[in-house]
Amino acid sequence: MLNFNFQNATEIIFGKNVEEKVGEKVAQYGNKVLLHYGGSSLKKFGLYDKILKELKDKNLEVFELGGVLPNPRLSLVREGIDLCRDNNIDFILAVGGGSAIDSAKAIGAGVKYHGDVWDFFEGKAGVIDTLPVGVVLTIPAAGSESSSGSVITNEEGWYKKSFGGNILRPKFAIMNPEITYTLPSYQTAAGAVDIMAHVLERYFTNEKHVELTDRLCEGVLKTIISNTPKALDFPEDYNSRAEIMIASTVAHNGWLDIGRSTDWASHQIEHELSGIYDITHGAGLAIIFPAWMKYNYKSNIDRFVQFATRVWNVEMNYYDPEATVLEGIKKFEEFLTSIDMPTRLSQANIDSERFEEMATKATENGPVGGFVKLNKDDIINIYKLAE
Amino acid sequence: MLNFNFQNATEIIFGKNVEEKVGEKVAQYGNKVLLHYGGSSLKKFGLYDKILKELKDKNLEVFELGGVLPNPRLSLVREGIDLCRDNNIDFILAVGGGSAIDSAKAIGAGVKYHGDVWDFFEGKAGVIDTLPVGVVLTIPAAGSESSSGSVITNEEGWYKKSFGGNILRPKFAIMNPEITYTLPSYQTAAGAVDIMAHVLERYFTNEKHVELTDRLCEGVLKTIISNTPKALDFPEDYNSRAEIMIASTVAHNGWLDIGRSTDWASHQIEHELSGIYDITHGAGLAIIFPAWMKYNYKSNIDRFVQFATRVWNVEMNYYDPEATVLEGIKKFEEFLTSIDMPTRLSQANIDSERFEEMATKATENGPVGGFVKLNKDDIINIYKLAE
Repeated sequence: MLNFNFQNATEIIFGKNVEEKVGEKVAQYGNKVLLHYGGSSLKKFGLYDKILKELKDKNLEVFELGGVLPNPRLSLVREGIDLCRDNNIDFILAVGGGSAIDSAKAIGAGVKYHGDVWDFFEGKAGVIDTLPVGVVLTIPAAGSESSSGSVITNEEGWYKKSFGGNILRPKFAIMNPEITYTLPSYQTAAGAVDIMAHVLERYFTNEKHVELTDRLCEGVLKTIISNTPKALDFPEDYNSRAEIMIASTVAHNGWLDIGRSTDWASHQIEHELSGIYDITHGAGLAIIFPAWMKYNYKSNIDRFVQFATRVWNVEMNYYDPEATVLEGIKKFEEFLTSIDMPTRLSQANIDSERFEEMATKATENGPVGGFVKLNKDDIINIYKLAE
Repeated sequence: MLNFNFQNATEIIFGKNVEEKVGEKVAQYGNKVLLHYGGSSLKKFGLYDKILKELKDKNLEVFELGGVLPNPRLSLVREGIDLCRDNNIDFILAVGGGSAIDSAKAIGAGVKYHGDVWDFFEGKAGVIDTLPVGVVLTIPAAGSESSSGSVITNEEGWYKKSFGGNILRPKFAIMNPEITYTLPSYQTAAGAVDIMAHVLERYFTNEKHVELTDRLCEGVLKTIISNTPKALDFPEDYNSRAEIMIASTVAHNGWLDIGRSTDWASHQIEHELSGIYDITHGAGLAIIFPAWMKYNYKSNIDRFVQFATRVWNVEMNYYDPEATVLEGIKKFEEFLTSIDMPTRLSQANIDSERFEEMATKATENGPVGGFVKLNKDDIINIYKLAE
């Protein structure tokens, strides 16, 4: 087990009707609030009006910046930074999923930084201060509601990059599973894959003797596997929605990677896809992760046997452990197909034309991945396996 | 799943040599430090000198209060409160296990309260402020290093009571598994039982649809079951010591009971034992918990079947689920015996003389337990089952 340092002070406020506490919570931190969100669904289902009322009831001055897109854009982050500075805004409330939250985090850090916010993403500066950010979560997927990171897409060149720091963790996350009843099936399923991927990036480690976190990871994966089909079949089933929502937080709040080395190559490989083709992150991960597994399992058969037997209940084939591994990966793909996620690039209408370009971008700072180091050719091979 | 609110800001600093950071960490919070600890083992193994040096290197003014006993006493808490007030101490560093930490928490809260600190334990006052507390953990067991509670024994009448509040969580916990190499086998085993008991108090719930936390609980239990024998056989095995140490924190940091109702009757029943007979808390729990299970399993067979099959790998007996349950409880007892813990009161030289008195004390505020409500007679029956 590796040494580690862990701290996550985000307050999780979870359950039915908890969005009614948003005014009270925001008022603990600020007076002038930037309400940051995506698009029309928020207004369609009444949450927007509800939140606005709660904020105004607490006499908070509300500024608005909507229009956050999936794979949130740098241009809007810059607009948000200007808006905050021009109006002395002292708190940012993100209402949405990972895109709105990541965008809010970048705005918050950018406001307190004298240079250009993209510096953080290019590693030219570290974040040392930020406006406080709070969250009303509407899409369980990214885990950004209590994570220390933010992923933004720079439209100039379609670079999708991340930055992080403990100070980026939101002050609070208001999470009512009922709000997710109206999520389209596609987003529910893509969110589930995103959650699984966050766990898998940590699960595939070469560090031995990390039993507790192995088991915690397996618990989160099994919870998603059993609850996602229920939520798809019965969108208003509170309990399965609740299991998925809290799993999204646990998958990415930092506890699952204590003492472990992690991988993150699949995320990098997928970022190039969704950066260029604007595919939903979870759907992109459903395509990339099985291919990554097929390409890399031989580097650590034992770990993949554990994945197959513990997560997918594959019976161990003692004569042929590799067959056990392949059965596990097959079950993973079958699960993805069963929740209507693509597992091949062709299903997302992506051909081989830009494999070279994407692999070049993914490796421009060197090989990627902590579990197996992948260079440009490896990544092209993984894209090919996913064709 | 129940609504919940969760926040735990304790910084966990974990791994080899991390105690070297103690001066730097304390200096972030205070200048005048109360070093609070138990007895001779700290000085014997050099940790005391090491910590004192780190604190002095940061020019911190150090006051000392040693002598914390297992089942820490109210009289020492009061002494600590006076010492802090008389010297304007602004930080308390607990070095030890749950006893030193719980005592430090009570002192910290008492210093900031105008009345008598025992008021908190009797529910006459709620804690709203405290001196900041930090921890160097030497015994993984109580989980107090990041928990929100404190348990203290009042020698006048030998009442063992608890109080809690989010503000009681320590600012940081420094946890080096190597420090636990010198723990006697008995304390290692009793600590493991304490950790398991913290999980079991949460695991036995009547709340359905708490799959994620069920699985997280099962993961912690399995980790303790597989690592405790290793740590007993090879006291200097870093990885098993590390698994136990971080499991102690996860078992009691609050994540495992989100969305669930919990029980805590076994702790109450044991508190009467260790309050009167001064038995080690973990050993008392090893005696009480199996008896509690035997007395109560019929109230929710399904939950006990899950415990038997998932935690103890008992094969489900579809003809006779009750047999499955009893096999699970038997395996739990066998495990406790295998790590040299008592499972009967007679092994701790406790007879039936004070059953009535303890059961009366345990229920003086009404029936105890969230999973099954137990009255005085029930508790006497449980003591009898444990004879």
